[in-house]
Amino acid sequence: MMLRFTFRALAATSLLALTAPALADTLVDNVDGVTIDGEGKVLRFTGLVFDDDGKVTQVLARGDERPRVDYRLDGEGRVMIPGMIDAHVHVGQIGFAAMTLDLSDTNSLDEALQKIAQFANDNPGRPWILGRGWNQEKWGLGRFPTAAELDAVVSDRPVLLDRADGHAAWANSLAMEQAGVTAATKAPAGGRIIRDAAGKLTGVFVDSAIGLVGKSVPDPRPADYDRALALAQERLIANGVTAVGDMAVSMHEWHAYRRAADLGQLRIRVMAYANSPELMELVGGTGPTPWLYDDRLRLNGIKLYVDGALGSRGAALKEPYADEPGTSGLALTKPAQLRNLMSRAAMGNFQTAIHAIGDAANADVLNAIEELSETYTGDRRWRIEHAQIIDPADIPRLGQHGVIASMQPLHQTSDRTMAEARLGPDRLDGAYPWRSIIQAGGRLAFGSDAPVEPADPFAGMAAAISRTDADGEPFGGWFPQETVSREAALAGFTSDAAFAGFAEGRFGRLMPGERADFLLVDRDPLLVSPDDIRQTKIIGVWIGGIKVSGE
Amino acid sequence: MMLRFTFRALAATSLLALTAPALADTLVDNVDGVTIDGEGKVLRFTGLVFDDDGKVTQVLARGDERPRVDYRLDGEGRVMIPGMIDAHVHVGQIGFAAMTLDLSDTNSLDEALQKIAQFANDNPGRPWILGRGWNQEKWGLGRFPTAAELDAVVSDRPVLLDRADGHAAWANSLAMEQAGVTAATKAPAGGRIIRDAAGKLTGVFVDSAIGLVGKSVPDPRPADYDRALALAQERLIANGVTAVGDMAVSMHEWHAYRRAADLGQLRIRVMAYANSPELMELVGGTGPTPWLYDDRLRLNGIKLYVDGALGSRGAALKEPYADEPGTSGLALTKPAQLRNLMSRAAMGNFQTAIHAIGDAANADVLNAIEELSETYTGDRRWRIEHAQIIDPADIPRLGQHGVIASMQPLHQTSDRTMAEARLGPDRLDGAYPWRSIIQAGGRLAFGSDAPVEPADPFAGMAAAISRTDADGEPFGGWFPQETVSREAALAGFTSDAAFAGFAEGRFGRLMPGERADFLLVDRDPLLVSPDDIRQTKIIGVWIGGIKVSGE
Repeated sequence: MMLRFTFRALAATSLLALTAPALADTLVDNVDGVTIDGEGKVLRFTGLVFDDDGKVTQVLARGDERPRVDYRLDGEGRVMIPGMIDAHVHVGQIGFAAMTLDLSDTNSLDEALQKIAQFANDNPGRPWILGRGWNQEKWGLGRFPTAAELDAVVSDRPVLLDRADGHAAWANSLAMEQAGVTAATKAPAGGRIIRDAAGKLTGVFVDSAIGLVGKSVPDPRPADYDRALALAQERLIANGVTAVGDMAVSMHEWHAYRRAADLGQLRIRVMAYANSPELMELVGGTGPTPWLYDDRLRLNGIKLYVDGALGSRGAALKEPYADEPGTSGLALTKPAQLRNLMSRAAMGNFQTAIHAIGDAANADVLNAIEELSETYTGDRRWRIEHAQIIDPADIPRLGQHGVIASMQPLHQTSDRTMAEARLGPDRLDGAYPWRSIIQAGGRLAFGSDAPVEPADPFAGMAAAISRTDADGEPFGGWFPQETVSREAALAGFTSDAAFAGFAEGRFGRLMPGERADFLLVDRDPLLVSPDDIRQTKIIGVWIGGIKVSGE
Repeated sequence: MMLRFTFRALAATSLLALTAPALADTLVDNVDGVTIDGEGKVLRFTGLVFDDDGKVTQVLARGDERPRVDYRLDGEGRVMIPGMIDAHVHVGQIGFAAMTLDLSDTNSLDEALQKIAQFANDNPGRPWILGRGWNQEKWGLGRFPTAAELDAVVSDRPVLLDRADGHAAWANSLAMEQAGVTAATKAPAGGRIIRDAAGKLTGVFVDSAIGLVGKSVPDPRPADYDRALALAQERLIANGVTAVGDMAVSMHEWHAYRRAADLGQLRIRVMAYANSPELMELVGGTGPTPWLYDDRLRLNGIKLYVDGALGSRGAALKEPYADEPGTSGLALTKPAQLRNLMSRAAMGNFQTAIHAIGDAANADVLNAIEELSETYTGDRRWRIEHAQIIDPADIPRLGQHGVIASMQPLHQTSDRTMAEARLGPDRLDGAYPWRSIIQAGGRLAFGSDAPVEPADPFAGMAAAISRTDADGEPFGGWFPQETVSREAALAGFTSDAAFAGFAEGRFGRLMPGERADFLLVDRDPLLVSPDDIRQTKIIGVWIGGIKVSGE
């Protein structure tokens, strides 16, 4: 049947078009659904309808009449939760880490060599074989491995493998040759070249000498970034992560997003923060980009840094380090420079996400936010990334000016003994102070900082509600008064993480009008133990109503 | 009425969706339509139907039954031609030229000062007032103008104005102050600072001394690129140009396209050629981008250069310049380097567009194409940009390997006396040899090189068929045996220009499946005199079925 309308018939036609439902509504029924609304309240449901655009149109309770739809999926009573949002990751680095060989689980030199050979064989197009994680002590070798041993398994391409601690690297002969390193090469200051009794190169380079070979590793090309993005998406989706805040996106990484999205290959949703004001303005011009590719990509603003990390004593503290009283850390960005950069972003309504770890750094960022808020009013959502150590006197200030603390629960469990050493026993009250921030009226967004920690939101939720690690340590939790409720933990990885990236109304909640990004899982994170949450099995992952993972 | 389909009804629904016409077909009827098909044949029609996507669905001859449609436009017997395609422009530069003050039509200092004041007033946000075209001789001033005279009309912002010949610039006091230029400043080698009797600065700087002030002009910011793109689009559309080949697109220009297109503000269609292999790969990765934004943007490949221009004796000639026997031009890219760059592009199926003006440059490009064609087979469409002076012995080679000569008819009329001087009377047989290239089986694409020449395809067509300028000089045409037919001229600015950018099937012809990019004009370029073609009045411009210019 052919339908043809004359101009007169158009008015009626348009009305019809507006009121007719989309042609392919899908109902996922018989689920044990849970989502957190914008006010942190739990909503439970048993059926979800989404349309052809992948947007939720109805959320159904047990008694609600089911609409007639084109497609119907039986959830078989599984738990449905929103796709997890990781508010702070480094997507490119996740991908590049996945592209290098991980030797950390090898128990002997032979096992390592076998793995290296296999990896080289599996990756014929890779010009250099790069890896990390070897440890001759763990192997019981009693000496460093040698270039000759590497040559025996890979001689056609250069190989460079970092030791587990990153303080040494092991090269094959071709790598040394391409780098122009010979027996005559001298180690630079702060470095050492391991030589044999005859003074010849053995293939192992220590500390700053690693750069003698490392400088020859070619910069990744656009095709490498494409591969890294594809791998990172795979890993994230496998972990139930359907959206991320990508922090300090580089020019190459931004273009990798564009290339993927232009080909329909950007599957996760990305709230991006540029690594420089130049890139921010190049991409966004006079403000953030629109939401692009059906809410899959937006440049929100810029990532800034005010200090370093606690482990390397780079975090800027108000008082000296307990375990190195001569230093109290390092401000990477001077106060005036920070304010200038924040102004430059705020003038264009770009969002700023500022790395601040030490209590001095956090205090300075809070000062800067207070000052800028006088000029730049409105809904700014100033983000502090990490916000690990906060002077308890400053915590109430996190409840003002719309500050968002973007925090990583797994950092707390990984870092606690290190934090105790760095700060001493008397300065831990404001360490990873999640509950205090909420009580002060502040907003949290949770993430992983992957690849620094695994991009595993279930492990993150478990840490957030228990402050214990995967082994249940310490018993009862580390400063357990700073745990958050299960609901807050789920919100931190869903609705609040979306809000932190101006994505509310688009994704993060299973509510009408938002994208149908959801997981089917085998247990309810609001009901089971922290340890059980860590063991969550993901049955399927849907983004925009399209199944992207699962049987 | 609400329509709801169960799963069972879906098959029928889908069929219906496939066969039903779009809801808003438009018929433009009662036109005198003409287009050139892919084989260079003229097609005439009187009605055109396009759909909601802005694609042509039917082309109707006089006797054809008119379909029932939603919208109907009466063409009132006007001539309909495809939107003009300018195969070689510099969009950013068109825009930036439009953003600076043009003083070339001023006849007195007073008139110039008035215009400067007006421009400053009209552009309050412009941090520097930049302009060009003043000439104190034409003004009858008998001396250079002064900074004090400029200060009297603009003192709140720096002003820098180039003389008509580009060999001097006129600054106000603030510009000199911001540049740190004082009475004590010495002129660099090759430059001169005009001083008064007391040795004080007058505000005029000659040749290399222009840079003393010019270096302080701020680089354009992304917002400036946005403005430039908007202005360039306006100018192009006003000239009936609906699509362009943009040559040597910079990183900033590419991002300006993205920013505009993301906001739905890219109106013209752009076949882009990157200005470096790095940008080409950053944007395209392992190959050209897909056609983006409904066929409005594609990165086709890269622009390369092998020589300079004829006017500055930079074009590489086989024999020395007639008017400077000591030189035969300059190869900007060495043969090996050219081949490496071409290979790098061809490996990724990127297209190469190579600037070659002199006969030696063209011979070298043809050699390179022959060599590369042995490895890189398939539909490569190697483009030679300008191809102005070709050794007649080489012309047959333009008919091989799918070479496309991308030429600018207005260059011929502007340059002819200069070309005579540079080459002497005996070496003009292969100068702008359009018809010879066609006869050799080569393909032409026509453009303007705007802003070097005006982006006026009607002036271009007139030059192409007459080899006379706007004054009808020289009588009978310059080497008139190299004129092309009217049909070939129209094809050069429509179907052939599209083919040169891999856009056939998308735009360039008014045929089913291609985009409804068309002009209504007041005369038929296939029927009127060259002089009449130059006077063509554009009644309206449509891109993708949307009217973008006209009453």
